[in-house]
Amino acid sequence: MTDIQQYLEKLRAGDKLALSRVLTHVENNTPEGIFALETLFPQTGRAHMIGITGSPGTGKSTLVNSLAMHLRKKPESPRIAIIAVDPSSPYSGGALLGDRVRMRDLHGDRGIFIRSMASRGALGGLSHRTAALAQVLDAAGFEIILIETVGAGQSEVEIASLAHTVIVVEAPGMGDEIQAIKAGILEIANILVVNKADRPGVENSTRALRAMLQMAHPGDYMPMARKHLFNALESPTTAPEQSQETEIWMPPVVQTIATEGNGLDELMQAIEDHLAYLKRGQGWAMRDKENLALEMEGLIREHLTQRWLAQMPEARLEEVMLALQQRKISPHQALEKLLTYN
Amino acid sequence: MTDIQQYLEKLRAGDKLALSRVLTHVENNTPEGIFALETLFPQTGRAHMIGITGSPGTGKSTLVNSLAMHLRKKPESPRIAIIAVDPSSPYSGGALLGDRVRMRDLHGDRGIFIRSMASRGALGGLSHRTAALAQVLDAAGFEIILIETVGAGQSEVEIASLAHTVIVVEAPGMGDEIQAIKAGILEIANILVVNKADRPGVENSTRALRAMLQMAHPGDYMPMARKHLFNALESPTTAPEQSQETEIWMPPVVQTIATEGNGLDELMQAIEDHLAYLKRGQGWAMRDKENLALEMEGLIREHLTQRWLAQMPEARLEEVMLALQQRKISPHQALEKLLTYN
Repeated sequence: MTDIQQYLEKLRAGDKLALSRVLTHVENNTPEGIFALETLFPQTGRAHMIGITGSPGTGKSTLVNSLAMHLRKKPESPRIAIIAVDPSSPYSGGALLGDRVRMRDLHGDRGIFIRSMASRGALGGLSHRTAALAQVLDAAGFEIILIETVGAGQSEVEIASLAHTVIVVEAPGMGDEIQAIKAGILEIANILVVNKADRPGVENSTRALRAMLQMAHPGDYMPMARKHLFNALESPTTAPEQSQETEIWMPPVVQTIATEGNGLDELMQAIEDHLAYLKRGQGWAMRDKENLALEMEGLIREHLTQRWLAQMPEARLEEVMLALQQRKISPHQALEKLLTYN
Repeated sequence: MTDIQQYLEKLRAGDKLALSRVLTHVENNTPEGIFALETLFPQTGRAHMIGITGSPGTGKSTLVNSLAMHLRKKPESPRIAIIAVDPSSPYSGGALLGDRVRMRDLHGDRGIFIRSMASRGALGGLSHRTAALAQVLDAAGFEIILIETVGAGQSEVEIASLAHTVIVVEAPGMGDEIQAIKAGILEIANILVVNKADRPGVENSTRALRAMLQMAHPGDYMPMARKHLFNALESPTTAPEQSQETEIWMPPVVQTIATEGNGLDELMQAIEDHLAYLKRGQGWAMRDKENLALEMEGLIREHLTQRWLAQMPEARLEEVMLALQQRKISPHQALEKLLTYN
């Protein structure tokens, strides 16, 4: 624990090696990692988190690199962190290789930090770990955090939706991919990018996306426990002149050629517009509330379940589970039998 | 509740309309749906569940249809159910349309039942709902259940891994897609299919997959609570002549042209080989144990969390959550403060 305290001090001073070590502890959920998250928590809630997602082949990684370099050129030269949820095999160490390739692109800019995350074995826990890494980077003073995910699976949707601003990337002429984009991802998009805009079919893709946007409407599903926690959080009172409750954000469709930097200014403008929109209304605070409710829900569930299982005699548990296995009782009956023990 | 009892009786008699109604109740998690699952549970654990996954554009749906028709021709003509986790927009009703198109293909065969599932708003709950539908179909007497998912996201991996046998579908010349396949999906594949094998590049794709298989090794990540429940379940004692603990399944790579039925016999043989392998060793029982542990974990977590939140005074919860929101306390400190109330 003394080591981690030293790392945390160095991290605050901008030491990237110390930051990497803290992130590794947090990613592996070690006691030091939990301690780090706890210690850093008061400094969180400030970074603008931007999720970028899309199918493989859309040039998403190049776009993220290009966007990071463009953002750095802004007058205030914000410090930028990239979390790349890496598609490589969880077990082959692909994430490390990816890191090196990308590090080379952004080489020499001390204001950009890249972290790849393998998706190894973290079924169900990937979005939780991503959120934790983002918290550390937020506390470390990065003003903008780009969270890059691949694919349009439900987990990717979850990860992207941790962010304040979600950018969905498409490319022309990927007929099948347009289907993939429909898998719940259009509903969470705040900005749509048609990358590789020098390819044929760019206008068709743009038109198709605009048409699909007309049909999409965001879902607001939240499990009961999380909703309960969410509702317990305070909503900021909006000043009268700001109370544009009815203002609706229409996701713009931006065309880019990331390899040449084309369209990046328009994309940055769209990001700034969305940020301004969030801050005008309650969008910024809502995202924070959602993330806090999600985090507390996870902690409470995990703690209650482990505490409860720990005090359950093994013999009793085995007896009930055996009856379940033999189909003598149903899952709900098994739950009841276990509950009446307490 | 009287209605659902009637449906359940008709379902047992093979009535497909009744089956559809029960599935809708289960999918929407209504009280009738929960009652149905409870009632049907003793009849579960018998069907061979086969997960089929792969990127869009691999011809996966055609392969599933073709496989279903081939399987029906086996001497015992097994009854087959297909659960298609549909990639269409969660809100546009695409699932229904897909149903109709596919129904036409398989028209007239009363031994095949198709159910599409939209992925609407079910963040985190998709695999749970898929498992529940599979249970109903299992209890309804379908010998084989094909679970078709799209994409290589973590949730898709979870859904596929509910199955006894997982088939991953590829197509030649989808360079980018080969990346997608790496996102944790190769580790769960029991059989690999290179579909559209009349396309150029089929041998390259097959070779690439074989090479990647050499590197892949399955993960066995399980959250602590689930592991605890899993361990409480009984492992079947293996007869001496069957105790081939060291037998390892090497996933075969099968080439198919689903539109013409080519390679389907080889695919069916691979499926039968894998089933025989599972039954020789403890594979079949292990999958059942994993699914039961997963289901009990979900039930226990949900119940404990809701019970605990219900008895927590709102004022207390709001006070703690406000301190969290203002970054005066950390999430773990918030948890502790809430716990000490009890």
